Amino acid sequence: VKILLIQGANMEYLGIREPELYGTTTAAELDALLMEEAGRRRLHLDIRYTNLEGEAISMIYDADRGDTEGVVMNPAGFTYAGYALRDCLKAVALPYVEVHMTNLVRRGTRSVTAPAAGGFICGFGILSYVLSLSAIEKLVAPL
Amino acid sequence: VKILLIQGANMEYLGIREPELYGTTTAAELDALLMEEAGRRRLHLDIRYTNLEGEAISMIYDADRGDTEGVVMNPAGFTYAGYALRDCLKAVALPYVEVHMTNLVRRGTRSVTAPAAGGFICGFGILSYVLSLSAIEKLVAPL
Amino acid sequence: VKILLIQGANMEYLGIREPELYGTTTAAELDALLMEEAGRRRLHLDIRYTNLEGEAISMIYDADRGDTEGVVMNPAGFTYAGYALRDCLKAVALPYVEVHMTNLVRRGTRSVTAPAAGGFICGFGILSYVLSLSAIEKLVAPL
Amino acid sequence: VKILLIQGANMEYLGIREPELYGTTTAAELDALLMEEAGRRRLHLDIRYTNLEGEAISMIYDADRGDTEGVVMNPAGFTYAGYALRDCLKAVALPYVEVHMTNLVRRGTRSVTAPAAGGFICGFGILSYVLSLSAIEKLVAPL
Amino acid sequence: VKILLIQGANMEYLGIREPELYGTTTAAELDALLMEEAGRRRLHLDIRYTNLEGEAISMIYDADRGDTEGVVMNPAGFTYAGYALRDCLKAVALPYVEVHMTNLVRRGTRSVTAPAAGGFICGFGILSYVLSLSAIEKLVAPL
Amino acid sequence: VKILLIQGANMEYLGIREPELYGTTTAAELDALLMEEAGRRRLHLDIRYTNLEGEAISMIYDADRGDTEGVVMNPAGFTYAGYALRDCLKAVALPYVEVHMTNLVRRGTRSVTAPAAGGFICGFGILSYVLSLSAIEKLVAPL
Amino acid sequence: VKILLIQGANMEYLGIREPELYGTTTAAELDALLMEEAGRRRLHLDIRYTNLEGEAISMIYDADRGDTEGVVMNPAGFTYAGYALRDCLKAVALPYVEVHMTNLVRRGTRSVTAPAAGGFICGFGILSYVLSLSAIEKLVAPL
Amino acid sequence: VKILLIQGANMEYLGIREPELYGTTTAAELDALLMEEAGRRRLHLDIRYTNLEGEAISMIYDADRGDTEGVVMNPAGFTYAGYALRDCLKAVALPYVEVHMTNLVRRGTRSVTAPAAGGFICGFGILSYVLSLSAIEKLVAPL
Amino acid sequence: VKILLIQGANMEYLGIREPELYGTTTAAELDALLMEEAGRRRLHLDIRYTNLEGEAISMIYDADRGDTEGVVMNPAGFTYAGYALRDCLKAVALPYVEVHMTNLVRRGTRSVTAPAAGGFICGFGILSYVLSLSAIEKLVAPL
Amino acid sequence: VKILLIQGANMEYLGIREPELYGTTTAAELDALLMEEAGRRRLHLDIRYTNLEGEAISMIYDADRGDTEGVVMNPAGFTYAGYALRDCLKAVALPYVEVHMTNLVRRGTRSVTAPAAGGFICGFGILSYVLSLSAIEKLVAPL
Amino acid sequence: VKILLIQGANMEYLGIREPELYGTTTAAELDALLMEEAGRRRLHLDIRYTNLEGEAISMIYDADRGDTEGVVMNPAGFTYAGYALRDCLKAVALPYVEVHMTNLVRRGTRSVTAPAAGGFICGFGILSYVLSLSAIEKLVAPL
Amino acid sequence: VKILLIQGANMEYLGIREPELYGTTTAAELDALLMEEAGRRRLHLDIRYTNLEGEAISMIYDADRGDTEGVVMNPAGFTYAGYALRDCLKAVALPYVEVHMTNLVRRGTRSVTAPAAGGFICGFGILSYVLSLSAIEKLVAPL
Repeated sequence: VKILLIQGANMEYLGIREPELYGTTTAAELDALLMEEAGRRRLHLDIRYTNLEGEAISMIYDADRGDTEGVVMNPAGFTYAGYALRDCLKAVALPYVEVHMTNLVRRGTRSVTAPAAGGFICGFGILSYVLSLSAIEKLVAPL
Repeated sequence: VKILLIQGANMEYLGIREPELYGTTTAAELDALLMEEAGRRRLHLDIRYTNLEGEAISMIYDADRGDTEGVVMNPAGFTYAGYALRDCLKAVALPYVEVHMTNLVRRGTRSVTAPAAGGFICGFGILSYVLSLSAIEKLVAPL
Repeated sequence: VKILLIQGANMEYLGIREPELYGTTTAAELDALLMEEAGRRRLHLDIRYTNLEGEAISMIYDADRGDTEGVVMNPAGFTYAGYALRDCLKAVALPYVEVHMTNLVRRGTRSVTAPAAGGFICGFGILSYVLSLSAIEKLVAPL
Repeated sequence: VKILLIQGANMEYLGIREPELYGTTTAAELDALLMEEAGRRRLHLDIRYTNLEGEAISMIYDADRGDTEGVVMNPAGFTYAGYALRDCLKAVALPYVEVHMTNLVRRGTRSVTAPAAGGFICGFGILSYVLSLSAIEKLVAPL
Repeated sequence: VKILLIQGANMEYLGIREPELYGTTTAAELDALLMEEAGRRRLHLDIRYTNLEGEAISMIYDADRGDTEGVVMNPAGFTYAGYALRDCLKAVALPYVEVHMTNLVRRGTRSVTAPAAGGFICGFGILSYVLSLSAIEKLVAPL
Repeated sequence: VKILLIQGANMEYLGIREPELYGTTTAAELDALLMEEAGRRRLHLDIRYTNLEGEAISMIYDADRGDTEGVVMNPAGFTYAGYALRDCLKAVALPYVEVHMTNLVRRGTRSVTAPAAGGFICGFGILSYVLSLSAIEKLVAPL
Repeated sequence: VKILLIQGANMEYLGIREPELYGTTTAAELDALLMEEAGRRRLHLDIRYTNLEGEAISMIYDADRGDTEGVVMNPAGFTYAGYALRDCLKAVALPYVEVHMTNLVRRGTRSVTAPAAGGFICGFGILSYVLSLSAIEKLVAPL
Repeated sequence: VKILLIQGANMEYLGIREPELYGTTTAAELDALLMEEAGRRRLHLDIRYTNLEGEAISMIYDADRGDTEGVVMNPAGFTYAGYALRDCLKAVALPYVEVHMTNLVRRGTRSVTAPAAGGFICGFGILSYVLSLSAIEKLVAPL
Repeated sequence: VKILLIQGANMEYLGIREPELYGTTTAAELDALLMEEAGRRRLHLDIRYTNLEGEAISMIYDADRGDTEGVVMNPAGFTYAGYALRDCLKAVALPYVEVHMTNLVRRGTRSVTAPAAGGFICGFGILSYVLSLSAIEKLVAPL
Repeated sequence: VKILLIQGANMEYLGIREPELYGTTTAAELDALLMEEAGRRRLHLDIRYTNLEGEAISMIYDADRGDTEGVVMNPAGFTYAGYALRDCLKAVALPYVEVHMTNLVRRGTRSVTAPAAGGFICGFGILSYVLSLSAIEKLVAPL
Repeated sequence: VKILLIQGANMEYLGIREPELYGTTTAAELDALLMEEAGRRRLHLDIRYTNLEGEAISMIYDADRGDTEGVVMNPAGFTYAGYALRDCLKAVALPYVEVHMTNLVRRGTRSVTAPAAGGFICGFGILSYVLSLSAIEKLVAPL
Repeated sequence: VKILLIQGANMEYLGIREPELYGTTTAAELDALLMEEAGRRRLHLDIRYTNLEGEAISMIYDADRGDTEGVVMNPAGFTYAGYALRDCLKAVALPYVEVHMTNLVRRGTRSVTAPAAGGFICGFGILSYVLSLSAIEKLVAPL
């Protein structure tokens, strides 16, 4: 089962940027951890970083045209004004799980992409991603 | 490890109430499913239903005074105006995971208790609860 | 035909509380008057007073599980923030008529439970209740 | 006892317009039904349709100058911006009952004329009108 | 000098409607008083009452096409939503003075026609009209 | 094919009113131009001017009862508060094209009748009307 | 009859400041013109300029303690936030007429002192002051 | 003189909950301190804790029916949405003093029960309660 | 112990201004009463009246530079827009108690200076001041 | 005459994405249809798809520097937050026609780029584009 | 070249008030530093402190009547409600540079005087003033 | 000292776009002017233009990873919705000065990136950039 995991704007700086909010695990360490977890679940995980909203949109259309079966995304910097990304996620047939490391609700932020999600997980730091793999696995193969 | 799971106002009617939103699994079936899952994770799960916000508050203070180590709650009917419940959750030392079966963000609802949560999971139906057990387990025993 | 009539928070003080708004008929006098009217219409009326929103919710679920065929309610103190009560009324199959003694619209108040009502009557004082019995009778037995 | 019943803008198309909201009873059928009900109550009912707010205002001043003793109105299209109509209803001494076929509150609509009403009935379809006759009868002759 | 004075919706009931706000002078008495005052100032005053906003609009276009040189209006019932009337007043070349008997600002009302006025007088009761004649006279013949 | 074209409040003053916004073509010249264009397209065009919202409503119900197949309207002065007109347009089965000479969006105006339109054209001055004839022709006879 | 006329903040620069809005008559010229007009009406006019809201308040209390019988004021710079001035005007027994040279409503400004006024005149430039003398004269000696 | 002192939702956790805001005095210590202070003032103090808004309402009605002469309350968790409690406090004849330990205004919180209070004291921590006893004593026996 | 008590804008008219709200005790009588109460508590009270916000600010800086140990203030007319006063109160090291005679919350007013207060007392009329002396005494000498 | 037609974010998925809103015509089919229509009108049409707002901006500056004479754009995903695109369209001298397939107003969406348009066409599906070619042709060569 | 530099309400306490925001440089030290900088640029600097908005207004009118050529101001306490000051700055012909030591935008504050400024500098602490001298020098003598 | 200067969306059209707002200096001329000024200050200036927000983000992360010591940016088209850019600027350790040619506050625009700035300069046209170089120089080397 092939899954596209998109890390939105600013995620490349994970571990360096505001560590009191996001922890000190770097992007590379997170990737390794998730590839291992995916292997355990026999998911084929394609992790992509981008700072460009339009590029994320193209990735999703490409995935939809190919054999990818689900999308996990931390919209990060696209959380606030990613309306085009939201329309894209609504347009494709793929199940989508949205992930955030911090509790957005506590910070008073409203994700504009979340209405396009099948499910939403936030606030658990690195664990948010691990839970999202468990979730997308079930959504893709509900039986 | 002892966990308190609170089902807020109206959850007793699960499976009967708005099944197109909440599915047809009944409260009793959900309890069985969660007790089994908890057993697998060696969690001691105390499931409580209440329609009274003040009763939920008292349950949490009792848990905090006892040997309970975490709280999972679907605030359900308390989602909209449960400010006293939110203050209670902030007052106690217990980690709290908030769970909703539907994607609140898509429905435009803002949970007033969510800012007190360590993490927040919504939109996966019954699976939301399963993920929450995995999450609270990690939060309670992070190593 | 069995009808549940709920008098919400503060209704126990009818006739004493703000008589320039609510008149001087007491709760006991109103009950007698409504029982008589119900008798005339061969309705079996179960009148219940409660100051606890969660208790009102439980009453409605009990009624729905039993042989009650309709609900009339003056939400009174629950008018402003009774969101859980609203979800409960949407959850059950029983027709619901909402009643207020004063014209809420003139006072600029918006009832949060009213969207769950089949119909809404307000502003006629004691007469509001009498009209509501006529209305619930028709809703329960439309032919 | 003479009662003026005004059917506001768009009511002439009753039974044709949005039947899933307003039912299939036509304006003519409703008139017949209400004349019969009025006869039973010995009310002299004067039913008037108008699409012009100013015309409705003139009708009410004429009624107030004559021997009419009460007004029942479904403001319909005047519900949203009928401020002049509201001032007119406040200006005259006649008791006024406002009627709507659908539950306005559920649809999120606020009637600008309702603050001028003695009482307000909505959501019961054709039955709303029947209840309004019962109500205006009591308001006009309270003893 | 010919002046059009429009009395908007509900002004026909002056002296009867809410006398604690508007006094007991009737429309007929006010007309006589203003005709006399106009005579003293050698103004030819054309006083018109209407409950129909569109009719007021037509009166103004007719005046603009004729030899009328100024418009005085108490929009009354058109104060709240008379947007079409406002556009009409902006469209014609005639100076316009807006008059209200009560102090709108104290009542928290915002006149939608006032932005089209050269000047605005409110709060002086009958005196507001007298001042408006003095004002329109100056505006029409500034030297 | 018979089309009703309604010119809303203030359109009679076209060419005279705010020419820097609406140009200098008069209502009569526009009528001639549109009749010619309609002739070329074999549309039977019925052009009507009115300053009364209720009159526009009656015209539309009459058209719907007759053999008219489409409505084009510039709501003009009804744009701001024509809620009753909007309900009327939703009630009838006729396709409706809304036309404005200026770009409403740039001026920050929201048309309350536009939600009832099949399509919406604004900002092209006289050309807006010409495009609307082309559009209504296609909507009426889609094949 | 003694009248206090207060010119609020920035009025000292009349004729220099934004002449396209306020004209070219200077403060000194306006004073002369008003003293003459007052003389004609046998009013004893005390004209005061101040940029300090608290000073205006003290002037009004002094006037109220003395033999002044009415207050005319152009709040000017105090229009936007003169809440203390408003409370002062409500506290004294003196009739108060508020004056503005420009049409505040057209400029979208709301005067916070206006609710304390007996009447309100705006938009007539220098003429606004002349009308206000006529108005205060009548308010002070209504017979 | 008998006084009812209600400690609203979450007050049972005083001294444990957010001590940086509420200090370390526990509920039991506060009770002792207030009983002593009440003794000094010859007030008979009945201190009640509840997490249920409806229970607080019932306590107040019971007090009003008995010989209690005043109510002091820290609404605590009921501060945000205690509309039914507010209506109750308006309904009874007892003077009511509202108490908060922290300065609500600084925290941007608006108490919904405060409009029903004779007076309001906040921000002094434990001292707020002591001042409230002094205040209720005067209100109950003003001479 | 030296205390500065500031009476803000309009307080000089106490006993004369809106007596139904503020009672008939005059400023002079209140001063005498407070000096006596202060004497009993061995507080050296410096009572100052001002209608100028900037003057109140200077008083507070002077007090802070001298041997004054606390500030009590009824901001009165400065309540609505006294932002500079608020910043001043935050700038100095002196404890500050805010006092109002009426229940601001009931009147829907929000004090902009209150966030700078250690504590806040309102609604008790003259008694508010007496309580504030008791409060400032404790704040200044907490042991 | 050379025209730039930009298809904004998500338009590449036309015919696949939400067909109940946008129909089943694919992007390729629409291109063919528009090239043919353009040929008939002797317009040289340059159709460009992009998911990147900044790329659309660069296309427009390039067009403005070259011999392109008009821009037609369906902003699609840029409709909600394309402020930079709006500034770009205002910066260039080219006439701009905005096109949407659905009636944005009915969906409650406000286009941020529309204020920069000469004209605006929405709601006619594929026909919207055809009308826009007719419109841009006239705007570019008004005679 | 003569420049007026106004330090608004509370600036006299610079270095003492909230040093974590404003630093420890005192008003006297800042004055010395700025006089020296001004000397270097051959600017004649007139530094004035005031807590009274109306006094600042009078200073500016005096400067405008004299030979001052530019105004630099830190409105400080006047930032929030200095509407009269804003109108004054618009009234005079002098270029105006507004200065703040902290980044207002980050603190969510909107300066009401800033719309009257030629330019605006904030966030650089003491350096903000130094930059403002450089800026006003250029504005006054653009060549 | 190496400084990154980013010119945001639409800045490439400087001198051509809305010259009444932005002047006629072109982008190339501004670059030359700034390189010269930077040379004088011994700053190594790297000027970059981009219409893509994500590209600006990447430039900043690259600068942060390299030896750049400060960022100056005119966000231009990113001012309105550049939330991801704001998070990026908060993430890096580099001091950031924000620059705008026009006075944003006067135009009622709020910059979403400004809260991430150390300081903010706007309204001085080309001079804004010159001042920003002076400012960033001080911020980078405060001693």
